[in-house]
Formats: sequence, C-alpha cells, structure tokens
Amino acid sequence: MTSTALLTDHYELTMLSAALQAGTAQRSCVFEVFARRLPDGRRYGVVAGTGRVLDALDGFRFGAEEIDALRGVVDADTLDWLSDYRFSGEIDGYREGELYFPGSPIMTVRGGFAEAVILETVILSILNHDSAIASAAARMVSAAAGRPIIEMGGRRTHERAAVASARAAYLAGVDATSNLEAARTYGVPSAGTAAHAFTLSFAHADGSDERAAFAAQIDALGVGTTLLVDTYDITTGVRNAIEVAGTSLGAVRIDSGDLGVLARQVRQQLDDLGATETKIVVSGDLDEYAIASLRAEPVDIYGVGTSLVTGSGSPTAGMVYKLVEVDGVPVAKRSSRKESHGGGKRAVRVARATGTIVEEVILRDDAPADVRIPGTDGLDVRDLQIPLVRGGVRVAAPPTLEESRGHLAHALVTLPWEGLGLSHGDPAIPTRYLNEPESR
Amino acid sequence: MTSTALLTDHYELTMLSAALQAGTAQRSCVFEVFARRLPDGRRYGVVAGTGRVLDALDGFRFGAEEIDALRGVVDADTLDWLSDYRFSGEIDGYREGELYFPGSPIMTVRGGFAEAVILETVILSILNHDSAIASAAARMVSAAAGRPIIEMGGRRTHERAAVASARAAYLAGVDATSNLEAARTYGVPSAGTAAHAFTLSFAHADGSDERAAFAAQIDALGVGTTLLVDTYDITTGVRNAIEVAGTSLGAVRIDSGDLGVLARQVRQQLDDLGATETKIVVSGDLDEYAIASLRAEPVDIYGVGTSLVTGSGSPTAGMVYKLVEVDGVPVAKRSSRKESHGGGKRAVRVARATGTIVEEVILRDDAPADVRIPGTDGLDVRDLQIPLVRGGVRVAAPPTLEESRGHLAHALVTLPWEGLGLSHGDPAIPTRYLNEPESR
Repeated sequence: MTSTALLTDHYELTMLSAALQAGTAQRSCVFEVFARRLPDGRRYGVVAGTGRVLDALDGFRFGAEEIDALRGVVDADTLDWLSDYRFSGEIDGYREGELYFPGSPIMTVRGGFAEAVILETVILSILNHDSAIASAAARMVSAAAGRPIIEMGGRRTHERAAVASARAAYLAGVDATSNLEAARTYGVPSAGTAAHAFTLSFAHADGSDERAAFAAQIDALGVGTTLLVDTYDITTGVRNAIEVAGTSLGAVRIDSGDLGVLARQVRQQLDDLGATETKIVVSGDLDEYAIASLRAEPVDIYGVGTSLVTGSGSPTAGMVYKLVEVDGVPVAKRSSRKESHGGGKRAVRVARATGTIVEEVILRDDAPADVRIPGTDGLDVRDLQIPLVRGGVRVAAPPTLEESRGHLAHALVTLPWEGLGLSHGDPAIPTRYLNEPESR
Repeated sequence: MTSTALLTDHYELTMLSAALQAGTAQRSCVFEVFARRLPDGRRYGVVAGTGRVLDALDGFRFGAEEIDALRGVVDADTLDWLSDYRFSGEIDGYREGELYFPGSPIMTVRGGFAEAVILETVILSILNHDSAIASAAARMVSAAAGRPIIEMGGRRTHERAAVASARAAYLAGVDATSNLEAARTYGVPSAGTAAHAFTLSFAHADGSDERAAFAAQIDALGVGTTLLVDTYDITTGVRNAIEVAGTSLGAVRIDSGDLGVLARQVRQQLDDLGATETKIVVSGDLDEYAIASLRAEPVDIYGVGTSLVTGSGSPTAGMVYKLVEVDGVPVAKRSSRKESHGGGKRAVRVARATGTIVEEVILRDDAPADVRIPGTDGLDVRDLQIPLVRGGVRVAAPPTLEESRGHLAHALVTLPWEGLGLSHGDPAIPTRYLNEPESR
C-alpha cells in the first residue's frame, strides 16, 4: 500500500517535534471535524469520504522512504517517533451519506496530541473534497427527479480526484460514472459509448461519413448503444442513426446547443421515425439548475461533467479540524470570525413522527445516553455519530458504499420541503447547542 | 509504478473496440488540446502539468490487473490489443510555464486513432487541473508584487490534487508549500510552524497558557520561527511572543480578522517592542484580490490556501482534446457553440522588440519554418510548441520545474500592461488563424 503519511502539512510535524520536546505529546486530546457554514447558500451538506479516510489511516505509516524525506524537516527524535507511528486512539463520525449542517461534529478523533494532530491534513483533504462533490451531486440528483445521471467529469479534475469524485457522486445517487478506475476500485457502475472523435475519424478527403461511424459502433456495441448525433447536423444525425440502427436503437446523445429545444425536436423526430423507445441522453455544461430547467422536456438521461466534479461552484466543503478538548478541559480559539465550540460533543437529530427532521442538537459527549433534551417531547431523537476506529483499528463491518447510498436517499426524504430547494437560503434545520461548556 | 491506464473514460475503450472491429484503429490522427476560452474574464492562462502528463504516459500500461478489471467492458480482442499497449506516436506541446490564450494548441498528439484516443482523459485531467491552479497562482504572485507566498491549501482539496497543486503553484512563482509529499516528489520547498491547536494544547483547567506554547515552539524550532498570535487576544499574543522569544523573533502570523488593520497594529506594536525585524505573515481566506488590497499594508509573507487550490473561482481550465486531422484530412465538429479549428497546427507568438507580446498566430503545421507571416515585419516571432515525445519515448532533458518556473516569470513580464490586471476582461493578446483549412 502506498504510504499516505506525507499527505501532511509541514507544520503538523514541527508541532509534533515541539510537543515531544515539551513533554505534551501524550496529552489526551479531542479533535473535531466540522464546517462553520454550508457553502454558498446551500440548505444541507452530505458527508462523504469517511471510508476513504479509514483507508488512508491504514496507509499512514512512515517507512524508510518517508523518514528519509523528512530529514531536515524535523529532528532525529521526532523521526524515531514517526518511524513507530501507529494511531492508537478512537474515531467516531457521521456515517457516509449522512446529512450535515453548520457545526455538525462530522468526525471526532480522540488520542494523544501528537498521534492525533498529524492526521489533520489527510482527514480534511478527503472529507473536504468528497463532501463537496457529494453535496453538489445530491442536488443534481434531486433536480433530475428520478431520471438517471451519468457522471462524466473525470477529465475536468485532477486524475485521482476524478476517481474519488465518481465514488462521491455514486454515493449521492448518481447512477454511473465514465471513470474506469472508480469502477475497479469502488465498484461504481461505469458507462460510455463514443465521442465526436469517433464520428470524425471516419471522415475522408471527400467528406464526412457519419453513417459509417454509426454502423461501426453498432457492429461493436449492438443496437442498444447510444449514438452521438450532434457532430454535424443534428436532424441528419438522428435520421442517420435510425436508418443505420433501426428503431430499436437504445439512445441518442446531444452534447451541445439549446438542450431543451433540441430534446423536443429530436423526440418528435424519433417518434415520427417510429423509434418511440429510443432514449435521449443530454450532456454539455449541465449543473443542478440546468437539470431542473429540463424537467419538462423529453430527456431520459443526463450526463454531467464539470459542475459535478468541481462541486458546482463550491469545490471544497470548508471543513476544519480543531482541537476542542485537552486532558478533559474544553478549549477553543477566541479570535474574531472563527469562533469554535469547545469540548467533546455528541450530536443528535430530532425528527417528527412523520420522519421530517426539525433540528440538530449538540450535547456534551458525557451526557448520558438517555438524557432528556428540552423541547423534544414526542419527537424522535437519533444519534448521529457511529464508532469508526477503536484502539487504532477500524471497527468491523462499517457501512458499505451501497448502504451509505441508501442511507442518503432516505435522509433526503426527511428534509423539510424547503430543504430541497435549489435557491440560496438558510440551512434546512437549525443547530442548537445544549449545556455548552466554557472553553479555555 | 502504479498504472495510470484506468484513469480513462469508459467510452475511450468502447470507441477503441469499435475502431478495431471497423479496421480504422490505425488511421493516422492528430489530436489537439486547447481551451476555447480563458476562465471567467482572465487575461491569460498558464500551462502546467506537461511534466506530469509525461509521467502518466510512462505508467499507461494495461497489466493483468487492469485487463481483469476491463472484462465485461470490452471484448477479448480489445483486451488483447490493450495488453500490448505502448504509445508509439509523437507529442508536441507548449512547455510548462508558457502562457496560453483561447485556441492555443497546448498539446498535439500524433498517432494511430486507437493509441491516441485512449489518452484523452488522463491528459485532460492533468492539464485541466494543473493549469487551473497555476493560472490562479500566477495572478496571486503578481498581486503580491514581490512578497513571498506560501501555499497551504492541501487540506481543502483532494489529497493527491494537493500535491499537484503545490507543484503548479511553485511553477507559478509561489515560494513554498505546506505539503510534504510535494516536497518529496517534486522538490518544492516546504514550510510551516504551528497551528492554533498547538497553543490550545497547553491549556489546563485554570486557563490557557500561550506563553508556555510559544516557549515550547522556540525550544524546538529556534527564535527564527513564526509564532501564531491570534489564538486568543492578538495584542496579548504579540506581547507574549516578544517577551518569550525576544526581539529576534522571526515572524508572527495572523490568521483571522481584518488583516490590513491588524497588520498595521501589530507592526506598530512589534516596532514599539523593538522587534523591528520580526516579520508579519498573514493568512486566512486570501485570494488575489485580498492580496492586492493588502499591498500598502506592512505584510511580509502571505499564506494562501483554499482559493489557490481551487483555482480562485475557476477550478478547471476547460481544456478539450479534439481530433483535428485524420489521414491528412482536417476534421472538426460543426454543431453550435463548440466549433473547432481543424487540421494540425503550429503556433507562434509575436512580440515587439521591447519584448511585449502582441498576438498569437496559428498556422498549419505544414507551413515552412521560415514562412512569412503577414503583419509581423520587424517583430519577433517565436515557436511555442516543443517536442515532448518521439516514437512513444520522451525526448531527452525536457525543461525542469525550476526552468519552467523561470520561463513563466519571464513570460509574465512580456504581457501588455493590461494583461496583468486582476479585473475581468479580454485575453491580453488576440489569436489569429492563418490559412485555415476547410474541415470535413
């Protein structure tokens, strides 16, 4: 396994070095991952990346190569300490596919200062990226209102971020990805047929030959395939497609132009040609707003790229990893604009009997399991964190990606109706702090 | 080396399969990477990622594991072809650190249809990501007007994108990164001292102990270190810092609040305490506009995170990989909004004797080396593409990262003065097409 240990900020290790020297490295600490706000007027966020954090933790080892790379960054005692590094603490967190809101304690890491502080960067990188993608993708899935979405944005983002994006998008309810590495690594269904280059590759000195391209694709992939009809003239492309494939053609794809107008024209043309079962796939600069605007049009499948893998305007979830407790003492930064809530926390979500959620309540983590929360009489109260790591080892049988996907699909149904709105607004539910301790 | 072969879209392989069956897989093709426009009112783009593309090409091999993963995606004949895959063609491209403009042929891949089409996704992923980061970073470097910038955004982006971002930022003139993997892999200088968690970790039941934290940091890192003074009250923090470190303290860092106002106050306080050489580092939601707005303030070093690794509003460069020529015939998609220019190309940049660039001219790639370009009399004309791969093998001694960094620093000086403006506007120079062929 490739070491993830250097996916770390330089200052984690200088802090470690100073703590070792000062004798504070073993202080019992609680670090917490949370977002101060949701991005850009969003109503909810989707937790994603937890499974990848646990994978990264397994690979967080300083082998000989990593130690060599750190000579000059930290002193020999620190290198010795790192060469034996194994996280030995506890991690709890919101499961993947859980909704989150401002202040939600999405992940809590308990351990010695040194062993826990150096996990900051890799944990945040993964959660910030994956949650940003899943949060955007969930809005697109809602906007699509049951129509399938294929994620095809890998080419618009870092080549490894592409794989994680495909995973996060699938978690959020997207149906398939173009990315083959995501299919291999995470079992996400992959899909794809042909690009304009394929049609263009049949051109010759006398002109283009779209029909030859279509015929070749059908020979290889069968009539159930999707033919891309907008390389040249779309009306001709649709006619060529049905003439070559017959009326059993699986689908046509339109990748440019006014997709709503074109979808209507193409649907009419397909129906007139007798291809009433042939589906229409649209792609090209789609985001949740464009998807929503196509709801009344005869579109069967959406292909979404750039906006999905870049978080549709919010490419990072803005989560932070903050020390909230030291040797049992709640601590918090007190400078302007960035106030935090000290102390280890427990989070519950409160719902009506109908399932609709009404608020998130943050309690102290030493609150008894059956603590009475004022204002929740007759309401359902559910704990949000689950155990992820105990004694440095992942707990058995964490939720699978499919289970997390199902969890989110259910959670979205529990949002108050305005929570699924695409317009900018406040978080769908408020967050309430109960018995908050005074921090040092 | 980890295989990069599955960082590929499903449809590349279905196209391959169809082309093998149709007998068109060996057609001689020219694919071109270009951006139809610059992101979001930018005046120029910066090419980055070329070196990483060449690394990815070396790893683009379908081993037994990759072949296994593709069973069911493509047929057995295609799998056989892939298991022997080695790119055998030619690649030319703009060097890293070159400016680019709309239509610039940033990379040209020449080879058989099959061998070249399957490189689309990984090439675009790398160039789109790295160029987006470098393009944003270059604007920040310009805005900083000679003051150093430290990139510290790794935690806000995918964990591997973080490494590539640090590299791209360094290419663009940023001075150092927080990311240790970027230091190991690419030799980017790394930097960092301490976070708020370090100061907070010295708190106890009776209260905080900022002085103990500062003393511990100085013990470990020396008085040349940077103390983070805004965990509690900044004025007290600065006083504590100088009392503990003495007036030789390297720097203080402010990470929140109105950075301009605070920098002035802290400078005054440091000077009053006799710490006239102690520098001020500011960080916290900085982008190129915030950096520019601090130009008149006593700031010595900028720490930039989120906005840098997310491309400051433009997280992807929007480059595409298009087939432009087949067996010598220029080809181009002709549907709306996405028109392309067919045919293999050669690009030159035209500059005045003073060095200021005036336009980019795109010629046919069969134009003689000494072709006379109308309108360039008395001007300097420089070819933009360099050979990168010949016969499937990288050319010897491509530019190093340091050389590319120097190249960009020089190139930015050649922009017309309005090209360095931060405001939205047109590309700094126009692109002119000469003797454009008719496409099929």
